[in-house]
Amino acid sequence: MAAVPHPFDPITSGEIQLATRILEAAFPKVPLRYKKIDVQEPIKKEVVPFIEAERLGKPLPPRPTRLLQVLFHRMDTGAFYKALLDAGKRSVVYAKELPKEIQGPVDPDELIEIEQLCLSHPAVKAEVAKMQLPKGVTVCNDPWIYGTDDPKETRRLFQCYMYVMTTDHPQNNHYSVPCKFSPVFDGLTRELVRMDYLPGGPDAQTTETQPWKPVETIQYAHDLLGEPLRTDLKPYIVQQPEGPSFNLQRNVVSWQKWRFHVGFNSREGLVIYNVTYDNRNLFYRLSVSEMTVPYGDPRAPYHRKQAFDVGDVGFGITANQLSLGCDCLGHIKYFDGYRADSKGTPVHLQNVICMHEQDNGLQHKHTNYRTGAATVVRNRQLVLQMIATVSNYEYVFAFIFDQAANIELEVRATGILSTVPFDNQTPGTTVPWGTNVGPGVMAPFHQHMFSFRMDPAIDGHKNTVFYQDSVPMPEDENNPWKVGYTTEETVLRKSGTADTSVERHRVFKIRNDSVINPITYKPVSYKLMASPSQMLLASPRSFGVKRAMFATKPIWVTKYQDDELYAGGEFTNQSKESQGVEKWVQRKDNVENEDVVLWHTFGLTHNPRIEDFPVMPMERVSVMLRPDGFFTNNPALDVPQSTQSFNKSTLHPEPAACYKATWWGCGNHVPTVMDAIPEGDRCTCTPKVEKDGKEYPPKAAEKP
Amino acid sequence: MAAVPHPFDPITSGEIQLATRILEAAFPKVPLRYKKIDVQEPIKKEVVPFIEAERLGKPLPPRPTRLLQVLFHRMDTGAFYKALLDAGKRSVVYAKELPKEIQGPVDPDELIEIEQLCLSHPAVKAEVAKMQLPKGVTVCNDPWIYGTDDPKETRRLFQCYMYVMTTDHPQNNHYSVPCKFSPVFDGLTRELVRMDYLPGGPDAQTTETQPWKPVETIQYAHDLLGEPLRTDLKPYIVQQPEGPSFNLQRNVVSWQKWRFHVGFNSREGLVIYNVTYDNRNLFYRLSVSEMTVPYGDPRAPYHRKQAFDVGDVGFGITANQLSLGCDCLGHIKYFDGYRADSKGTPVHLQNVICMHEQDNGLQHKHTNYRTGAATVVRNRQLVLQMIATVSNYEYVFAFIFDQAANIELEVRATGILSTVPFDNQTPGTTVPWGTNVGPGVMAPFHQHMFSFRMDPAIDGHKNTVFYQDSVPMPEDENNPWKVGYTTEETVLRKSGTADTSVERHRVFKIRNDSVINPITYKPVSYKLMASPSQMLLASPRSFGVKRAMFATKPIWVTKYQDDELYAGGEFTNQSKESQGVEKWVQRKDNVENEDVVLWHTFGLTHNPRIEDFPVMPMERVSVMLRPDGFFTNNPALDVPQSTQSFNKSTLHPEPAACYKATWWGCGNHVPTVMDAIPEGDRCTCTPKVEKDGKEYPPKAAEKP
Repeated sequence: MAAVPHPFDPITSGEIQLATRILEAAFPKVPLRYKKIDVQEPIKKEVVPFIEAERLGKPLPPRPTRLLQVLFHRMDTGAFYKALLDAGKRSVVYAKELPKEIQGPVDPDELIEIEQLCLSHPAVKAEVAKMQLPKGVTVCNDPWIYGTDDPKETRRLFQCYMYVMTTDHPQNNHYSVPCKFSPVFDGLTRELVRMDYLPGGPDAQTTETQPWKPVETIQYAHDLLGEPLRTDLKPYIVQQPEGPSFNLQRNVVSWQKWRFHVGFNSREGLVIYNVTYDNRNLFYRLSVSEMTVPYGDPRAPYHRKQAFDVGDVGFGITANQLSLGCDCLGHIKYFDGYRADSKGTPVHLQNVICMHEQDNGLQHKHTNYRTGAATVVRNRQLVLQMIATVSNYEYVFAFIFDQAANIELEVRATGILSTVPFDNQTPGTTVPWGTNVGPGVMAPFHQHMFSFRMDPAIDGHKNTVFYQDSVPMPEDENNPWKVGYTTEETVLRKSGTADTSVERHRVFKIRNDSVINPITYKPVSYKLMASPSQMLLASPRSFGVKRAMFATKPIWVTKYQDDELYAGGEFTNQSKESQGVEKWVQRKDNVENEDVVLWHTFGLTHNPRIEDFPVMPMERVSVMLRPDGFFTNNPALDVPQSTQSFNKSTLHPEPAACYKATWWGCGNHVPTVMDAIPEGDRCTCTPKVEKDGKEYPPKAAEKP
Repeated sequence: MAAVPHPFDPITSGEIQLATRILEAAFPKVPLRYKKIDVQEPIKKEVVPFIEAERLGKPLPPRPTRLLQVLFHRMDTGAFYKALLDAGKRSVVYAKELPKEIQGPVDPDELIEIEQLCLSHPAVKAEVAKMQLPKGVTVCNDPWIYGTDDPKETRRLFQCYMYVMTTDHPQNNHYSVPCKFSPVFDGLTRELVRMDYLPGGPDAQTTETQPWKPVETIQYAHDLLGEPLRTDLKPYIVQQPEGPSFNLQRNVVSWQKWRFHVGFNSREGLVIYNVTYDNRNLFYRLSVSEMTVPYGDPRAPYHRKQAFDVGDVGFGITANQLSLGCDCLGHIKYFDGYRADSKGTPVHLQNVICMHEQDNGLQHKHTNYRTGAATVVRNRQLVLQMIATVSNYEYVFAFIFDQAANIELEVRATGILSTVPFDNQTPGTTVPWGTNVGPGVMAPFHQHMFSFRMDPAIDGHKNTVFYQDSVPMPEDENNPWKVGYTTEETVLRKSGTADTSVERHRVFKIRNDSVINPITYKPVSYKLMASPSQMLLASPRSFGVKRAMFATKPIWVTKYQDDELYAGGEFTNQSKESQGVEKWVQRKDNVENEDVVLWHTFGLTHNPRIEDFPVMPMERVSVMLRPDGFFTNNPALDVPQSTQSFNKSTLHPEPAACYKATWWGCGNHVPTVMDAIPEGDRCTCTPKVEKDGKEYPPKAAEKP
């Protein structure tokens, strides 16, 4: 007996195979090249009654339609198609040819093909020949999604950034040695479109390819470092001798009153569905819906460098297959996924999500100073983590659940800076839009803008988003001492945007107007602890902004519609303007007490430090969803106390130290320097004197 | 042989005894009541050559003068004194009577004395009698520092907030049952100054004390909860079988290229001195120099509620004595401290600081997508933690060091909300400046404003503070595509203030203009990852603001002077206006390439959630100091790779799951609900089919 996929389950190997069979039947004898075969988001109005019946333990209504989505090219005509399939009926719902200006995302096979195309192209070989590379030194390239600077462009283009490989070590950091030429290819015709030359100095001027002058490569691989590693780091081992505190039923996780479904797709990667706490509804769906990385280097061709790592590539297909003991610590559960390759063959993505518990210090503590009685509860968390490698760069995404009903989305940016060549002809030369990170290599300023999509279900699916500002009270007779302050509330009644405000301590909340907290007398709510960030720096007149309108405002509220999942729109690759959240808010839908979606754009303005090279210590940014009037008291009250019998900590062994004695406290003493005293040295005082602090010196007894 | 205290060592028991002997000799036959006996911050110009010689392994110059500071009352006159003693010479440097309007901090003995005074006072007893409490129900009180509303007041006042105790359980939450009267006492004369009555409704109106109507007490103690505890939390044990990675020489910690001195004093508690990384100077001194908690409830007497938890009380004297396995997890080293009681007797403060390592996920990762080779380095941290209980509230302070040369100051706010009585005569009544958190009890809005004092020594003691904004480039011929952005730099040349700016991604940095990074060609620097926060909400015309000017601006820069340690000034208790950083910046000192001090005010506007009661899940805020052009590459490059042999993680056991098969993938299948499938149920497909995704269904072989 086979298990039935739940509406929120990721695509299976069998479903990928089913999709290809359906399409091959629909397009007989047409060669197809698959770009994506994945689950289509299920139709919400079918899903809600189903999961509500599950939650309430009632008889289940009809199972929601299982839909599959396929993006493919007809190789006979080159046309790009999107098809929707009904897996249950094994039928095509639709298969439509998309307009010529729409480019699908890059797929892994395509990336490798372009890379090989570039390396074997005569024009590229000719440029490489001009470099006169010494024996053993070669070149490689990172094909980049092309970006946009021409509204008429309809070709599928790739810009290959070239690098010198000074070693064939599998962890060679070629980003340290960028070349100054960059071919552009048509991804469909495989033609060389243009050979771009990259500026070498602080202006946009370019030169012909010159013989290469060897430079030191800044490496990160330990065996290439040429320096000894630290030897003083001792093991730190996490053990859960009684096993983890979570329970699993396929992709459904139960942990500490939480219950949710772990989803995975090739575009967003990790998705959290149907989050309940103590069997109360909280969120229908949580995901990182899009991100964009525009670069601030104004010189051609860098003006086109603007990655949409979700829409142009996908966090699911670039998700790292994680290794035990490397990417998570402790007792680890892994989740797998599937994607299709260009032939439609299922590719098993093992260990793309890891789940584990972690201890995050104290959750709450209070000591009654009268009695000395302390209550201490530690902050145990459940972490679901995914790491995506998008060419040079890595993102670590974690959804973190805790025992006080908080959900955190933590993003860590790491990996390797995207670099450009930079001649130091005059030592001391710098540019105002980048950082010199090594000999001949510069890392331009850029931004990482994320869109966190929250589809709430706070005690139900009709919710309202509002914000509260903390403001001084008027200085009138109700506030005679001028210290009073209060909150001002603004309800987002129509779909639209809002700004964050640190100065006003603006807090965004999602409430259910139909459920009133019996003690606060206010509707139950969750608040978004947003991450106020600088929005896009590019000009509103630039393609950089037109293509990523979601990154011009930190807060967006829309009325839910199926198919509105991605803040930057469905197709971002070479887009001329985005077709995302900025379009949907224009409907001016009523979003008060409705099925709403809250989108939060946050990010990092990343002006590289030299310390970010050759591999970047993670920069962390996090947002949190926190109950605010949802419960009637601290939801972690029933978490057992932190005790030594449970936690089994170890006391650091102490030398029999009475170093607290002083040079006048222990009789005549010749001062010596601290470093001259051997560790663990004992003084001549008796420890007792030092412990109770009463007996020494004897004169103390004479005090009044 | 006794060990000599290092200039940065905390006070010893012997030094406390020495101080009382010196003063008793100086004030023969005068009864003295001690408020504070502690080390006086050593004179920096004496210390710097000493620690530089230590750092460079050179012969040591003369040891800096060891100074002790004593605050005391002459009990014959009531006069309040400050004395400075030379411990080496065993002499009084000065002992001066302070002006009458200056009030010293509260000391623990005084707190208990006032509490007892209140409970035994006939006027209080009379009020209690009016409440007609049932047998077994009593009252208690929290003496509060009085605050300020009268510029002429010179008495030492305490406002006692009264609570009903419904049980004598040592963890009874009396904050859940506040009374509506509040006596004010003179702390020196012990006289009742006034009986205040607290408003019961949303306006300032008060009533006479009425018979008490029993209400449910909202408890946090597990044995008072009346609900079962969670039973599904499994142990999580941290082991370091080879011991910790740190080394200790008395209070000097060495860990992963870091070296620093752990200081402790009764006012600030934990202080980090003389921070070096790889033997390069970074910071002379780091501490939380002050904090204030003004309340936003405008009604008398709450307008005076404004705690300065550092200056009015002290994080050192309120630091929790930590317990193994409760407050830290893993391999723990504790540090002790000493304070003096009111008689001058040393009180041993055991385990007031804990130190341990922790794993904080990934520090950096990169996967070379061509070769699949991944480098993964985990983020090991060293944590120094202190927890202060100031009456109802707890603060958890941690200085966190990592392997990429970052220092984080993390603050967690927890403990119990300061509550006020609130009649729900008309159900549904609320106030616009607080949250109803239980029957008859309301928690007013308030702010927690912290001042982080950073005395930098970035490669030396002459430093410059500046800020950089990220701004669009002009849309001119150098920026034809309008995507360029750059940074604008502002140097703080004269002592003064600055604002944070999220919109401009303003970053504050500390640099050494004399040391140029050989690759970036810029001066070496560290940046402050500030926590932009709402500043004080009270009116500039209120005492709340006049007393806490440090909390009106997020950034202050002063030129170093001895004795300028506390942002709100030396004496904050009942202060009329602060004498702190806002006065020092007015000198308009040159602070470019000087011995500068950077002060960062950050905090939480805390509009209580009901979930914050009866004990608050921690709210976390953090700031970080991060190298920015200080090194020539990622300083964590030489940290060994994360490996399973080192980390010894555990793989979650999987049922032999082939649930990835679908109802069409495994032949004829009758759909069933997910919950009906037993966990670990096997389908009839062979697992091999599921693993390689190639063999099933057989038709796949027929694909073109």
